[in-house]
Amino acid sequence: MTDGLPMRVPAAGLPARVRIHEVGPRDGLQNEQAVVPVEVKAEFIRRLAAAGLTTVEATSFVHPRWVPQLADAERLFPEVSGLAPDVRLPVLVPNERGLDRALALGARDIAVFASATESFAKANLNRTVDEALAMFAPVVARAKDAGAHVRGYLSMCFGDPWEGPVALDDVVRVCRALADLGCDELSLGDTVGVATPGHVAALLTALTDGGLPVDRLGVHFHDTYGQALSNTLAALQHGVTTVDASAGGLGGCPYAKSATGNLATEDLVWMLHGLGIETGVDLGRLTATSAWMADRLGRPSPSRTVRALSHKEQ
Amino acid sequence: MTDGLPMRVPAAGLPARVRIHEVGPRDGLQNEQAVVPVEVKAEFIRRLAAAGLTTVEATSFVHPRWVPQLADAERLFPEVSGLAPDVRLPVLVPNERGLDRALALGARDIAVFASATESFAKANLNRTVDEALAMFAPVVARAKDAGAHVRGYLSMCFGDPWEGPVALDDVVRVCRALADLGCDELSLGDTVGVATPGHVAALLTALTDGGLPVDRLGVHFHDTYGQALSNTLAALQHGVTTVDASAGGLGGCPYAKSATGNLATEDLVWMLHGLGIETGVDLGRLTATSAWMADRLGRPSPSRTVRALSHKEQ
Repeated sequence: MTDGLPMRVPAAGLPARVRIHEVGPRDGLQNEQAVVPVEVKAEFIRRLAAAGLTTVEATSFVHPRWVPQLADAERLFPEVSGLAPDVRLPVLVPNERGLDRALALGARDIAVFASATESFAKANLNRTVDEALAMFAPVVARAKDAGAHVRGYLSMCFGDPWEGPVALDDVVRVCRALADLGCDELSLGDTVGVATPGHVAALLTALTDGGLPVDRLGVHFHDTYGQALSNTLAALQHGVTTVDASAGGLGGCPYAKSATGNLATEDLVWMLHGLGIETGVDLGRLTATSAWMADRLGRPSPSRTVRALSHKEQ
Repeated sequence: MTDGLPMRVPAAGLPARVRIHEVGPRDGLQNEQAVVPVEVKAEFIRRLAAAGLTTVEATSFVHPRWVPQLADAERLFPEVSGLAPDVRLPVLVPNERGLDRALALGARDIAVFASATESFAKANLNRTVDEALAMFAPVVARAKDAGAHVRGYLSMCFGDPWEGPVALDDVVRVCRALADLGCDELSLGDTVGVATPGHVAALLTALTDGGLPVDRLGVHFHDTYGQALSNTLAALQHGVTTVDASAGGLGGCPYAKSATGNLATEDLVWMLHGLGIETGVDLGRLTATSAWMADRLGRPSPSRTVRALSHKEQ
């Protein structure tokens, strides 16, 4: 289906392998208007794993009232947890109650979500940044005690819709706090999509200068202004080897005014494979999975690679 | 309208200034299904110039049967040629007959279009690569004699739909031939959008090693697989300072199966300004122009920046 494409032409100074943290079933479907049936979600996760993705964020154990799209977490997780022993299935938890629910179902990968800015901490968590960190402290500690791997998401690492530009020092401070709590890895989110490659380089330099090793840092770019993939290239050039993306670009409907635009996993894989960087992903199977999911959602995928390769197939 | 965005965070090793070669009125409208009235085209060009673009490719003096969308070149060019004395308005010519028409109207910027591959030379020009070069020889010579600046477009510099990967040596050979004919600058086209950043770096290295100075090289990327902006970043990192783009992403309808996907000028400007690279472009005025043109065409712009900023304005 991919006809030997993309051609592989490595570039100097890039990692040999990248781990893609697939967020489509969670971050993608959470931001779609439609509520997808639990059987479809389970099949989506199975197909993503079969396409070679080794980390597939499955769902979120938040209160169903907050995120009705993911209210079926208790039913979904057991459907998929036993199916792919070599695939990590992270789940988000907002607090100890969410952690209890996730651990009871056998989750081994836990994610918490903090904010680099006071405005978004207030809007998303109804707490100050430090109050949110205090809330996460026992969550991370108990998850670690249970043997889980813990990821800390950090929103608004570049710009904030209320506060504008975000100071590098603020991001470094909260990242260090999350690492000190015990988070094994951090995901740096450009929640509003305003970053450009020099900003990415500056933040990564500030973080590594601040004592955070680059192999604990992942990047999570949004394509609001079309910058997600060039920002990713800048991150790779600074040694990052964990990149978040959403299969088919789910969660960023190009036809909706509220589009946030997740980086499409296929567009990312195209670039990585073109650069000769290993991902373990079969681009043809991944594209077919996203085309299948687009049919379930009743609208075309916003991923350019999915559209181009699906067209070729016909 | 742009609220001080994007934030400017320069990166090391990039040019201080980039000249955007705006192709929307020609390459964009040529690939739109609708035929746009000549008055609308003229107004589009005027607004692009008023937004700060200093090179606006205006039209093509090919036979009207080949490109009916641009059959009004004789009426359009005089409408705009006198309006912006400091703005370059390149026009494409396929042969001496086209050159005569362009020069008769006072065109001072001429472009010819060659192919790096035999298959596309045959399909687009019905000639071999060398026969096409022979056809262009008197066109370039006479244009230079008339005092015009000459650009040579080269298609299929990375991949070809019939031949697959294109050898770097083939591209170097045709580029050198175009330079030897007298072309002042070359535009390296990724016509099918398959390039990735390492391939871009490898080709630019081969060209400069082959004696072609980087300040005579421009890049022309298509977003078929979502790679245009990251490829542009790679080109900037190799010293390229001329980048082709299409206002609003015209010419790459995201809803059509035949989408080729020109790089949107606004997405490019967002990255360049974020990197602190001067363009002379007012992003707000440019976005307003593309939003206006999208209304004329009756469909939303495929540029993510245009969509995001137009949404903000409402």
